[in-house]
Amino acid sequence: NFVTPRPCVDERMAERLASTARLFNSSLVRSVSHSILLRIHNRTCSEMAPLKNPKGMRDIWPACHRETIIQTIGRIFRSHGARSLDTPVCELTETLTNKYGEDSKLIYDLKDQGGEALSLRYDLTVPFARFLAQNKIQAITRYQIGKVYRRDNPSIKKGRFREFYQCDIDFAGKFDNMMADAKCLKILCEILRKVQLPYKFSIKVNHRTVLSGMFRVCGVPPQLFKPICSSIDKLDKMPWEEVKQEMCKVKGLDEQVADKIYSYVSRSGDSTLIDQLLEEELGQDEDGKRGLDDMKALYKHTDLLEVSNDIKFDLSLARGLDYYTGLIFEAVVEDNVEVEVGSIAAGGRYDNLVSDLMDNQNFRVPIVGLSVGIERLFAILDTSKGGDFHCVIGSIGEDVLGERYKIAETLRQRGVLVKDVLKVNVKPLVLYQTCEDESIPYAVFFGRKEMNDSVVCLRDMSSRKDEKIPIDQLADKLISLLNLNQDGSAKI
Amino acid sequence: NFVTPRPCVDERMAERLASTARLFNSSLVRSVSHSILLRIHNRTCSEMAPLKNPKGMRDIWPACHRETIIQTIGRIFRSHGARSLDTPVCELTETLTNKYGEDSKLIYDLKDQGGEALSLRYDLTVPFARFLAQNKIQAITRYQIGKVYRRDNPSIKKGRFREFYQCDIDFAGKFDNMMADAKCLKILCEILRKVQLPYKFSIKVNHRTVLSGMFRVCGVPPQLFKPICSSIDKLDKMPWEEVKQEMCKVKGLDEQVADKIYSYVSRSGDSTLIDQLLEEELGQDEDGKRGLDDMKALYKHTDLLEVSNDIKFDLSLARGLDYYTGLIFEAVVEDNVEVEVGSIAAGGRYDNLVSDLMDNQNFRVPIVGLSVGIERLFAILDTSKGGDFHCVIGSIGEDVLGERYKIAETLRQRGVLVKDVLKVNVKPLVLYQTCEDESIPYAVFFGRKEMNDSVVCLRDMSSRKDEKIPIDQLADKLISLLNLNQDGSAKI
Repeated sequence: NFVTPRPCVDERMAERLASTARLFNSSLVRSVSHSILLRIHNRTCSEMAPLKNPKGMRDIWPACHRETIIQTIGRIFRSHGARSLDTPVCELTETLTNKYGEDSKLIYDLKDQGGEALSLRYDLTVPFARFLAQNKIQAITRYQIGKVYRRDNPSIKKGRFREFYQCDIDFAGKFDNMMADAKCLKILCEILRKVQLPYKFSIKVNHRTVLSGMFRVCGVPPQLFKPICSSIDKLDKMPWEEVKQEMCKVKGLDEQVADKIYSYVSRSGDSTLIDQLLEEELGQDEDGKRGLDDMKALYKHTDLLEVSNDIKFDLSLARGLDYYTGLIFEAVVEDNVEVEVGSIAAGGRYDNLVSDLMDNQNFRVPIVGLSVGIERLFAILDTSKGGDFHCVIGSIGEDVLGERYKIAETLRQRGVLVKDVLKVNVKPLVLYQTCEDESIPYAVFFGRKEMNDSVVCLRDMSSRKDEKIPIDQLADKLISLLNLNQDGSAKI
Repeated sequence: NFVTPRPCVDERMAERLASTARLFNSSLVRSVSHSILLRIHNRTCSEMAPLKNPKGMRDIWPACHRETIIQTIGRIFRSHGARSLDTPVCELTETLTNKYGEDSKLIYDLKDQGGEALSLRYDLTVPFARFLAQNKIQAITRYQIGKVYRRDNPSIKKGRFREFYQCDIDFAGKFDNMMADAKCLKILCEILRKVQLPYKFSIKVNHRTVLSGMFRVCGVPPQLFKPICSSIDKLDKMPWEEVKQEMCKVKGLDEQVADKIYSYVSRSGDSTLIDQLLEEELGQDEDGKRGLDDMKALYKHTDLLEVSNDIKFDLSLARGLDYYTGLIFEAVVEDNVEVEVGSIAAGGRYDNLVSDLMDNQNFRVPIVGLSVGIERLFAILDTSKGGDFHCVIGSIGEDVLGERYKIAETLRQRGVLVKDVLKVNVKPLVLYQTCEDESIPYAVFFGRKEMNDSVVCLRDMSSRKDEKIPIDQLADKLISLLNLNQDGSAKI
């Protein structure tokens, strides 16, 4: 047949020739024909090819449970009025240029192969903004779930990979103040409840213009707003004293200004904190007041949506990315001692990204969005299971094979996940071993004798009890034993 | 706030400086500081950035219906005993080297960025084989649905893109002869029926060792087996005369040999053809007989699986890829006049790929697999719909907003896809306009008066008839109007 033959004698010969040639420098090399050298080269490459994944990128096996979670999140997004968008995994390099500040060095570039300069997408937000700008869309609710790429230092312990999923929903368009923002928080709560997070979570919220006002009120020079903002962003990982050091020693902030900032960022609470702040100096600042009013409106909507107990107004929340213009938020697990996961979802309002991208300030698309860090979700949920089979089927006798196919088909039609041992004759012991090996709870077995009686043997692997079940009752029996929905889907 | 300021005066100045500098060659350029030039460069890049996708790669919007189809196929794969595997979009370049013959030039390479040489995956088969070899797995049934990349000449008309989905299931392991092979055909039929293909389809089957035997019997010199095989592969696009020309003029085949090949490749039929061939010269050839025996076994299983009427033994089917070693097959739509789609699914047996990859002939993993060209499926199915919303909800009065949120929530819980117009006050006309714009069939509207009576107005947009519905009956009413399943999922 057609498979490439294994390395043959002339190749081994050529290889020895070439290694000799290397010893005697280039004169002999020339005498070895180019084509043979090429074959040696290819051969050597493939022999040396380490069987491994790219650094920081994983094979996920089995991916079934992750898929179920992804589909659940997609369904929640859809139920809140979003449609799915699928953009390429690459973007023109120019599209990604100047969007990620220092992190631009983490972008994967493709080789220029006689076409355009391309890079792997760094997130799903800039591609979304590019999509809006390109198609001149000013109102849309879309979600997107896909892989993004960062040439970061991978760390399995911290769940930091170079290829990972993002899971975004964004509301673009002009809506009544804070309605879409509140909806993001509502959706986030629904997701965190639905995936049955094993830890208590809370959602920190803050507002970029509240921060702007705070900086002004504290006396931060305007050119230091951004640098000080990124220092504050580190407060969840570093103690205040270190952050203050960075602000004063590295960024040259006055120490008294830093202390005043601390008097703000150490405060958190609910809507009563907003009322207090409105009465204070911050409430007199134009930005401060505007931000605080937004936060009040947000609380009104989250009250009506019955999620305000899950959110916490926290003045120390800063969020690194430059493009946020209004609400910012971050979901964290509270009592997570086993795994260090950090924030599991985050988002905010970015009203200028699209107009900046188009370089057209008249094309304004206000957007508020939410990104679920599903890798972190996966890290604290048990994703090793899922996609497990419900039963395995086997029989003895070539004459009953057709009946086995038919029974398996009937079960499948009802949603039962059937594993068939693809042998004509399967002894019960082999069947039970398969169940053990793959954690399958039920085994269905029969021979000619059982077929003559129109029954099958059903073994419950946990109790090791066998039962004879009439063929036409098998599907119902399994569905009830497995506690599946009527359509065969799992009850989750 | 924190958004990067627009280009400011010094940048414009610098730009003018630089353009002047260009006129006067390099002396002036040096006087413009590096940092300003860098900013000009970045600025210019982003100003010039065309808002477009990479060549041959698309934004898919809305992607909902495609997602539904993908999920349906995934469910079918799973129901046949497969688990989902998710591999990185990149592989080490070495892993892909020497796997795709001439097509290797179509592989996208990444820039070497201080790490490993990486390439975008060209298919899902080689990554799967790499996964098996790397983890020394010899028995597994896995499916994978993901994007693959080919730097091919894109053609929208032919549905040929540089980024597209593949959708594979593979049975790896030692099973009884042709059982897994037959299962592939069964799965393929189930998929093509389930997605409600609007055309009649048929599945051509052939066998690589039948082809080997045929070539030998016809007198093709062994070194021409592969080149002649790829000529035959073109028979579905080219008439025999042209293929013969290529065989004889380009590849140097004897004309009489070509004619004898024609006497074989013009034959197709069902299992009776196999019996005939077994009686003829081909049945005397060792490879020929082995292949024909396999085909007989295949027909036995497809008979029992009740799909043998959908398959057609066709000696002209050759399939280009080198790595096939046994059964090969291809699904084509038969009466497809509107769209030229070619084959919509294909596959075959490749028993040597893993051992070749590991360069270890003792590590044998026989595999048979199936790849659904879902892009082609999408091309002939209407994917413009899907993910449409079931109803839109709106109300007037800030005091009923909480009730609106609650009603929407109740509907969502039942699986109704609700679009909320994110304004506090939504006039009915705005609501109806939204329905028109987004093809939403029902509008739910109310004000304080309706709330006092515990009803809402439900408008059927097709008949433009309004009806008052008690709030607690709304979900049931909509589910029955929309003909949804009890869990709110669509009946497909």
